[in-house]
Amino acid sequence: MKYNLLVAQSGGPTAAINASLCGVIEAAMASEEIEKVYGAVNGIEGIFAGRIIRLDTQFSSAEQLDLLCSTPSSALGSCRFKMPSPEQGPDRYDALLEAFRALNIGCFVYIGGNDSMDTANKIGAYCHDHGLSVRVIGVPKTIDNDLPITDHTPGFGSAAKYIAVTMQEIVRDAEIYPLKSVTIVEVMGRNAGWLTAASALARQNGCFGPQLIYLPEAPFDPEDFLKRVDALLQTTDTVVVAVSEGVRLADGSYVAESEQSGQVDAFGHKYLSGVGKYLERLVTARLTCKVRSLELSVLQRAGGHIQSRTDVEEARRAGAKAVECALSGQSQVMVAFYRVSDAPYLVRIGTAPLSEVANVERKVPREWINAEGCDVTQEAVSYLLPLIQGETVIPYENGVPAHFVFDKTPERL
Amino acid sequence: MKYNLLVAQSGGPTAAINASLCGVIEAAMASEEIEKVYGAVNGIEGIFAGRIIRLDTQFSSAEQLDLLCSTPSSALGSCRFKMPSPEQGPDRYDALLEAFRALNIGCFVYIGGNDSMDTANKIGAYCHDHGLSVRVIGVPKTIDNDLPITDHTPGFGSAAKYIAVTMQEIVRDAEIYPLKSVTIVEVMGRNAGWLTAASALARQNGCFGPQLIYLPEAPFDPEDFLKRVDALLQTTDTVVVAVSEGVRLADGSYVAESEQSGQVDAFGHKYLSGVGKYLERLVTARLTCKVRSLELSVLQRAGGHIQSRTDVEEARRAGAKAVECALSGQSQVMVAFYRVSDAPYLVRIGTAPLSEVANVERKVPREWINAEGCDVTQEAVSYLLPLIQGETVIPYENGVPAHFVFDKTPERL
Repeated sequence: MKYNLLVAQSGGPTAAINASLCGVIEAAMASEEIEKVYGAVNGIEGIFAGRIIRLDTQFSSAEQLDLLCSTPSSALGSCRFKMPSPEQGPDRYDALLEAFRALNIGCFVYIGGNDSMDTANKIGAYCHDHGLSVRVIGVPKTIDNDLPITDHTPGFGSAAKYIAVTMQEIVRDAEIYPLKSVTIVEVMGRNAGWLTAASALARQNGCFGPQLIYLPEAPFDPEDFLKRVDALLQTTDTVVVAVSEGVRLADGSYVAESEQSGQVDAFGHKYLSGVGKYLERLVTARLTCKVRSLELSVLQRAGGHIQSRTDVEEARRAGAKAVECALSGQSQVMVAFYRVSDAPYLVRIGTAPLSEVANVERKVPREWINAEGCDVTQEAVSYLLPLIQGETVIPYENGVPAHFVFDKTPERL
Repeated sequence: MKYNLLVAQSGGPTAAINASLCGVIEAAMASEEIEKVYGAVNGIEGIFAGRIIRLDTQFSSAEQLDLLCSTPSSALGSCRFKMPSPEQGPDRYDALLEAFRALNIGCFVYIGGNDSMDTANKIGAYCHDHGLSVRVIGVPKTIDNDLPITDHTPGFGSAAKYIAVTMQEIVRDAEIYPLKSVTIVEVMGRNAGWLTAASALARQNGCFGPQLIYLPEAPFDPEDFLKRVDALLQTTDTVVVAVSEGVRLADGSYVAESEQSGQVDAFGHKYLSGVGKYLERLVTARLTCKVRSLELSVLQRAGGHIQSRTDVEEARRAGAKAVECALSGQSQVMVAFYRVSDAPYLVRIGTAPLSEVANVERKVPREWINAEGCDVTQEAVSYLLPLIQGETVIPYENGVPAHFVFDKTPERL
């Protein structure tokens, strides 16, 4: 008996999450067991709100599937919904099961990060405990690269490539004037420094910066930082620093925390200054040089025009693998990558139990950061480098990339 | 008798200024009259400091010339030096003439923006008045697009493309959650709104944002702004605003000026908040929605990985044209573009007298901004669109773009 598949996207967007969605859709369309492919708009919330659309009917060519892969952010929309336990929120589970039954769902695929894998884990366990035939599969997605077990997460490679490319351009921009200058670049990553570590890849083709790289995994000492910047300025004009938004002092507090506590603006609001701005002011106060800071902000996660081909191809394969897992009877697992070797870069795609993935955060190993805590080691670079390899062909129309946009009217059901 | 050519770059970097440099070098190398091609490191300051290097000997293949064209920022370095008048700074002119004589310079090409054309104009006039055979040619360059006479300036098209592409990605990123949100994007341009106007090109392929676009050429009314944002939030979840760093109130003061005046941080420094941050706090204080702001900062001028092919090809032609002008005996002129038609896009490359270009700033015509002062007109779009067309082939190595780097040791003389 044929059944239908339901897929949804959750958490922060990436430049590769739609490639995973594409992988799910095309594998489901190719399967003889799966009849219709549905998508929930805005993740699990879309199921509760009845915002479910038909996906497979919206593609009439291979080019459209490719276009979805090169479209950044979450084409189905997203949510940040914390799924309660069955005891705390039985009505949520009732609503889910009702939707699954009404749509004859035999497979539910959730594409997301830590929180989303927790949601998938709870739904999968519930279906299993209640003898339901719905197979629940997670597909990893996060620019933060902080999921456990899997070697890396789709979406990270493209963000890492964006950061490496942009950081090299920032260095080129910073070095043109014959004067002492310090540029501080704040990179995303509240707890895990993977993205900030990727800034080291800007040095691959001989570029001298960034010279200092600070991750949340090693304690940050403002005085030591100033000393290092000052020492660099003795021998060079241009200093570029990459710093994670989540760097902490030895006592565990965020570096910019004290700075953020007291100040209010004309509206009575606190100045929520990031660590980049904080370090800019610190250097301005203590050293004699031109200083500026900048935040890569959402650009680093939405940069669809500069995807890593490795990342996008893996994301697409991960989506297809999720369908394959469901078809073979698996449930309560997340698709996971297992690295075989760095050079040549070889990965095996397998699975990991959702229960072991949910709510676990993977950080950069301390030994991949140098002893001084101001750079990453060659081991880190060897791990990161394969993930940013290759470029994708972005279809441009009228000078800007063409994007795939779903018709989200639920009437299509 | 053969002579040598000296070229230098000045002002802020762009993604196309090295293409103009390439155009100068290859045209000079191809000429029978010009023997050696020299470059001054850090603009005119490099001449005073004796930092002059040989350029033509550093290229051994066409690929290397192409690589220079895809390398962003100023490969020769830059400066922000205000050339005094001959009366105010006779020693500067003496130093220049000494360098010109020592190196047998028959042609001096200066690539830059408003200030640089002023410098070129002064040097050209001085050489002419003193009967020197040095021909002085300016090549326009500025992301700000604010030079007069020329239809547009090389460097602007690539920055405009970066802004259009990035703005579309910001909209994609902002729209994924089912909640009311306002995203404010601050774009460069202190007096001229050309770059901010280019954000309208993000809507070329059907993208709904940015819905509000504010240029310095029309007075900004914070209350009217709030009303428009509020009205948009009644009918849509996602509002994206593009605002020039230089927007002003009706009284001519900068919008964030009052906000910037009083506050000091822990170091006793003023909070130099940009207009984006200011509007973020304004919306937060007055409307109920998620608000964030971001600055495109130097990324918009250094984005070499996303050049406009039209821009880079024109920049290269402009460099070649400068040499051609000098060879034909012209001096005291800037290369200029004259638009023949928007569609098909046709331009003629000619010249403009440096004296008419120097120190004149060209702004966006008020009639290219809508009556409400919150968007640009179709006429503006028709003007802008051809300038961002086409992409260049960026050579990647190890996952990041390869860049051309000059050997800057003066020993090569």
